[in-house]
Amino acid sequence: MTDLSNGAAWMEGKIIPISEAKIGVTDWGLTRSDITYDVVHVWEGSFFRLPDYLDRFESSITKLRLDIPQSRQEITDILHDMVATSGLRSAYVSMVASRGTPIVPGTRDPRACKNHFFAWVVPFVRVIPQDVAERGAHIQLATASRRISPSSVDPTVKNYHWGDMTRALFDALDSGFDSTALLDENGHITEGPGFNIFAVIDGVVVTPKSGVLEGITRKTVLEISAELGLPCATRGISAQEFLNAEEVFTATTAGGPVAVTRVNNRILGNDAPGNTTHQVIEAYWDWHKRPELTQPINYRSFV
Amino acid sequence: MTDLSNGAAWMEGKIIPISEAKIGVTDWGLTRSDITYDVVHVWEGSFFRLPDYLDRFESSITKLRLDIPQSRQEITDILHDMVATSGLRSAYVSMVASRGTPIVPGTRDPRACKNHFFAWVVPFVRVIPQDVAERGAHIQLATASRRISPSSVDPTVKNYHWGDMTRALFDALDSGFDSTALLDENGHITEGPGFNIFAVIDGVVVTPKSGVLEGITRKTVLEISAELGLPCATRGISAQEFLNAEEVFTATTAGGPVAVTRVNNRILGNDAPGNTTHQVIEAYWDWHKRPELTQPINYRSFV
Repeated sequence: MTDLSNGAAWMEGKIIPISEAKIGVTDWGLTRSDITYDVVHVWEGSFFRLPDYLDRFESSITKLRLDIPQSRQEITDILHDMVATSGLRSAYVSMVASRGTPIVPGTRDPRACKNHFFAWVVPFVRVIPQDVAERGAHIQLATASRRISPSSVDPTVKNYHWGDMTRALFDALDSGFDSTALLDENGHITEGPGFNIFAVIDGVVVTPKSGVLEGITRKTVLEISAELGLPCATRGISAQEFLNAEEVFTATTAGGPVAVTRVNNRILGNDAPGNTTHQVIEAYWDWHKRPELTQPINYRSFV
Repeated sequence: MTDLSNGAAWMEGKIIPISEAKIGVTDWGLTRSDITYDVVHVWEGSFFRLPDYLDRFESSITKLRLDIPQSRQEITDILHDMVATSGLRSAYVSMVASRGTPIVPGTRDPRACKNHFFAWVVPFVRVIPQDVAERGAHIQLATASRRISPSSVDPTVKNYHWGDMTRALFDALDSGFDSTALLDENGHITEGPGFNIFAVIDGVVVTPKSGVLEGITRKTVLEISAELGLPCATRGISAQEFLNAEEVFTATTAGGPVAVTRVNNRILGNDAPGNTTHQVIEAYWDWHKRPELTQPINYRSFV
């Protein structure tokens, strides 16, 4: 039997090793980054909030005017089968819809392309490694690049336009930081490479209202805050406010909420994850035990 | 012998049919659009200005901090061999450098990836089809999206961040136009999907100075203008100036300079390509006969 412990993919009806999953070099998903995706995680044998991720994926597909042959139910079945076949118990699961290539060669009309869907799964990924998450991440407010404006590319459509992120990330890593947070044209906080951003300011848990991906982990953190009775708000956050926050944390499917203990040359709290951050992280992982938020994977037939 | 008339690619040392040329679905060239490319054309058996395209490709690679194993001479040899093997006499030749995947799985550090190079060739491509080029293209000034700002993604690094272009192109095509031209945040003309833009304003051939790809066809047009004694300038061009231009044309490797006869609801000249545009187009194709600008391909051994 094929070893799928490094990951697997579903392409054109077949489940294959991740190393064999490829896309054509002339596919507009590559050559125009005309593609959308979503990432849901599997934790200890169950999908977490899969319907929420599917909602966003469907919304992204509609906004990009993509049209894939698979129904929502078929996508759900494909993801379950693929993860079950891989045997991975905690995993990062990517679903992708690409523009494809023109039906008539040579045309430059995006309406005349054969769109397609594929998916892949790899062992659980953490944007911030676990050891860094425990001490708290150190992030740099980007000066190398500004977040791509929503007037150019809609950030609520999950996309691969990461040039601004990569530029900022190089600069942050070169300067000894773990990651970066980008600002918009008004100097407001947006997001970082792979995560939303939260701050605790005057006792209120805040995150940018717009100009960012509407993360499912972000949504979960807002719901957790409400349940815990923590005041919370979505609104614009200036860089200056952010630097003076009581606490900062990131939120991503690839690792959950993660404490930030340094921003630029500022040390937050006592250089250790704050109390609110701690409560949110604990609740986030607790919520993974709630049946209404999880879908167990049936590995049975593949073990 | 394999039929390569639809195109060929060079990947990992081998020349293969274009339909078999693929890259991994987890390659950061796809998942972060962390990739650069360049496109040179072959016209009637010879590369046109290949050293200029290689200069730009090398510059893009340096700016993105990519590092590929192939030297400039090796890339030149690969492109010549690939085109000769394909047998294509007039072709669109793409060279690509991608971030690849991390050497250590799981890391999110772009400095720790194995970068790679590949190339492909397909029959000559025209951004504007020949019949449209002859009557003159109709373009719409984009309102659906604004060009991605240079503070986010450097437009002088040839890139696949086309989300802004695609949004504008959908809108233009839906409205019956052939293509679109995008504006920057100051309302100045930038470029369209796959081409630079020129206007003749008060008898001067003008094109945006910055915030655009420094096209090799753009450069050629500026050199042609100088040789023909046409006044020319690179400078900012407002949308209003552009709408009142005497003539407008596009410039791209994929088709050369092409007349624009309508912009939004304005009909330029007599709804026919203008005299300056005509002179530039004629000179552009004449220059393809200049030995100092061309490199003949040695198809001999493959026929």
